[in-house]
Amino acid sequence: MISFDLSLYLILDPDLCSGPQGMIDTARIGAQNGVTMVQLRAPRWKKRLWFETARLLKEMLAPLGVPLIINDQIDVALAIDADGVHVGQEDLPPDVVRRLLGPGKLLGISVANREQLDASDLSGVDYIGAGPIYPTRTKLDAAPALGVDGFAELRRAIHLPTVAIGGIQANLCSPLITAGAQGVAVVSAICGQPDAATATVALRQEIDRAAQRRS
Amino acid sequence: MISFDLSLYLILDPDLCSGPQGMIDTARIGAQNGVTMVQLRAPRWKKRLWFETARLLKEMLAPLGVPLIINDQIDVALAIDADGVHVGQEDLPPDVVRRLLGPGKLLGISVANREQLDASDLSGVDYIGAGPIYPTRTKLDAAPALGVDGFAELRRAIHLPTVAIGGIQANLCSPLITAGAQGVAVVSAICGQPDAATATVALRQEIDRAAQRRS
Repeated sequence: MISFDLSLYLILDPDLCSGPQGMIDTARIGAQNGVTMVQLRAPRWKKRLWFETARLLKEMLAPLGVPLIINDQIDVALAIDADGVHVGQEDLPPDVVRRLLGPGKLLGISVANREQLDASDLSGVDYIGAGPIYPTRTKLDAAPALGVDGFAELRRAIHLPTVAIGGIQANLCSPLITAGAQGVAVVSAICGQPDAATATVALRQEIDRAAQRRS
Repeated sequence: MISFDLSLYLILDPDLCSGPQGMIDTARIGAQNGVTMVQLRAPRWKKRLWFETARLLKEMLAPLGVPLIINDQIDVALAIDADGVHVGQEDLPPDVVRRLLGPGKLLGISVANREQLDASDLSGVDYIGAGPIYPTRTKLDAAPALGVDGFAELRRAIHLPTVAIGGIQANLCSPLITAGAQGVAVVSAICGQPDAATATVALRQEIDRAAQRRS
């Protein structure tokens, strides 16, 4: 079992970051200011660009001790020896992904509601991304928003570390941590922010305060 | 080295075949009437659909002795133990693909002109798909068409088995075989044809006649 820290999980968006170099810059600033995991997600990219960008991200993040997670593209993850992958309900099934990855890598899956949770084979899964919590514009095919109460209810049924995702800004982190989230995943709260460092620090403080209150 | 027969290479198109079941039906009819390789290509599909369709195709084609090649998605190929993969210039680099696949699988790459050929690492590559020969509507980002003369010139520079691809119909096979193609790859000459069996037989006869004249 690999140890991992879901508390502030940055998902890079190619549009909000204005392309590969902006994603690398954003990830660096995030990792230097409290981000604990970085996910590369670029549904419209060809794989050569995936490969080249993922390789640069890994090279930059590894010395900072921040794991790089690849969304959906298991071949890219294998090619660059990423730290893990994240798959949605329409991607390769988790048991197939675990077989391709082997035991030493992180595997997260997205769950939007109780039905999806109950239908998922969780045997090789390390963590759950539960959401969207709030309506989001960065994922066009997202399921209906759960809200904090919906998240809290879903969280009680999940027996794995869980990160809340979808439309989360700094002032919205606290109730999710209180409701049992190990952390929050953000896109637009960091990507494309005029001052990504300050935005990251604000998220980090909000999450740490909520976690302290909970414990 | 695996033996393979490029002579009539069917590339399945989701739209022309009206979806997964139509693709499986078309592949079966093709394989029963002279198709020697089948490639699954579906750039807009999510991977769950890729995985499920590829698995069914493999199950159907394996007893017929026709290899299944997966376009671009190396993870899907690994997941279903496909016979090989085909990658384009913007997909994962061939040397990376060979490393992921191991030695026992076929690897083909697309080459549109001499510049792409010279820039490609061919060390782990089994065959070249050269084209487009004619203008095509089934690949929107295709390079300019080579024509038969352009193909013949490119073919002379290639030291690997080569399949001609792009806009090829039955009456256009013969000059390509004469110009040194080991075979032709077709999409719309079989996919979506009102009588796919008859269309396949016509291609098969045309190719065999041209190959006999050449030898």
